[in-house]
Amino acid sequence: MAPAKVFGPAMSTNVARVLVCLEEVGAEYEIVNIDFGTMEHKSPDHLKRNPFGQIPAFQDGDLYLFESRAIGKYILRKYKTTNNDLLPEGNLQEAAMVDVWTEVEAHQYNPAISPIVYECVINPAMRGIPPNQKIVDESVEKLKKVLEVYESRLSKSAYLAGDFVSFADLSHFPYTFYFMTTPYAKLFESYPHVKAWWDRLAARPSVKKLAANMAARA
Amino acid sequence: MAPAKVFGPAMSTNVARVLVCLEEVGAEYEIVNIDFGTMEHKSPDHLKRNPFGQIPAFQDGDLYLFESRAIGKYILRKYKTTNNDLLPEGNLQEAAMVDVWTEVEAHQYNPAISPIVYECVINPAMRGIPPNQKIVDESVEKLKKVLEVYESRLSKSAYLAGDFVSFADLSHFPYTFYFMTTPYAKLFESYPHVKAWWDRLAARPSVKKLAANMAARA
Repeated sequence: MAPAKVFGPAMSTNVARVLVCLEEVGAEYEIVNIDFGTMEHKSPDHLKRNPFGQIPAFQDGDLYLFESRAIGKYILRKYKTTNNDLLPEGNLQEAAMVDVWTEVEAHQYNPAISPIVYECVINPAMRGIPPNQKIVDESVEKLKKVLEVYESRLSKSAYLAGDFVSFADLSHFPYTFYFMTTPYAKLFESYPHVKAWWDRLAARPSVKKLAANMAARA
Repeated sequence: MAPAKVFGPAMSTNVARVLVCLEEVGAEYEIVNIDFGTMEHKSPDHLKRNPFGQIPAFQDGDLYLFESRAIGKYILRKYKTTNNDLLPEGNLQEAAMVDVWTEVEAHQYNPAISPIVYECVINPAMRGIPPNQKIVDESVEKLKKVLEVYESRLSKSAYLAGDFVSFADLSHFPYTFYFMTTPYAKLFESYPHVKAWWDRLAARPSVKKLAANMAARA
């Protein structure tokens, strides 16, 4: 069967969330760039893949998916093995904790960290727009409150869902990676368990491989 | 074993997302009200249940969970039967489609519909604040674009993930229910497949039971 296709710029955060799952399971894949400069994400072909005209989109044979967290889970389910199950749905309690912290990433962590990444990394690089300091400052304060909760959680277990790495952790990689290239990276030093957790994630071969490409943007 | 406990006002949208799952599977549960008037959601006891000081929180024996979508999935996994599996994780393609449309609810539908519900229902009832018409108008425009995608999707299958009802559909219930009590409810008439889908959901015994209580707020 042809390798799965991921549609979208590889350096995009939401695309990277899919790629890190593919790298973790060692699946073959192909990246098909979507050119925002020519509005390709709003083209009829792309709207068939993602009706909201966003990235990423994903194709595996006849199956088309969108929404990065849904795609990531599909990949981890499809390729799971006894020794490599990053989405342990067979264990009721573990599955619940993975879901809790995946939701926390989406609804608490991401809303705090992503504006900093947009203002300090994406807008300057893509649009030549300098950071809006008010947005950055407000988001840093918001992020501190989130990191306090993470510090407490990660003082009790090595990873967010427990003493096992999971999709909940991997899902934090793209925005945290870009955040670490901003002047605010040192914020993590005040949260030693969070810092140690990030260092463990950053040392994973999947993350190191993708980070090497993403660094070109930051 | 003691019945599961759901912490939070039963009429709250995010609490209702948990309750509809409990009703669907017929599980015993107890609602423990959390009094926002006395800031009980920020009390030490509640912060142990939900470190972000939000509702709902959930207790099942020794297991404490938060984040409504994570709790809902836990309930559907725990009580699933061959005839009643609203989270079909054993089927790779069905599971993926449920995830896609659960993410769409969280990241596309909810950001469009929830400001209308806050402005037209929650703020007037809870805080005596009249609707901010600018926010309502902008959100209605946003919602129309989302409903166009839903209309197309629901013209191909009876439910969002396919021809089977799932968590993806149920997760839409709380905000849609309150939206239907606003002057903008007639918007759904322009999207006949969406309207028929909502009518099917609203006719479910679980939804009818919860709606009877929630109607008091609207």
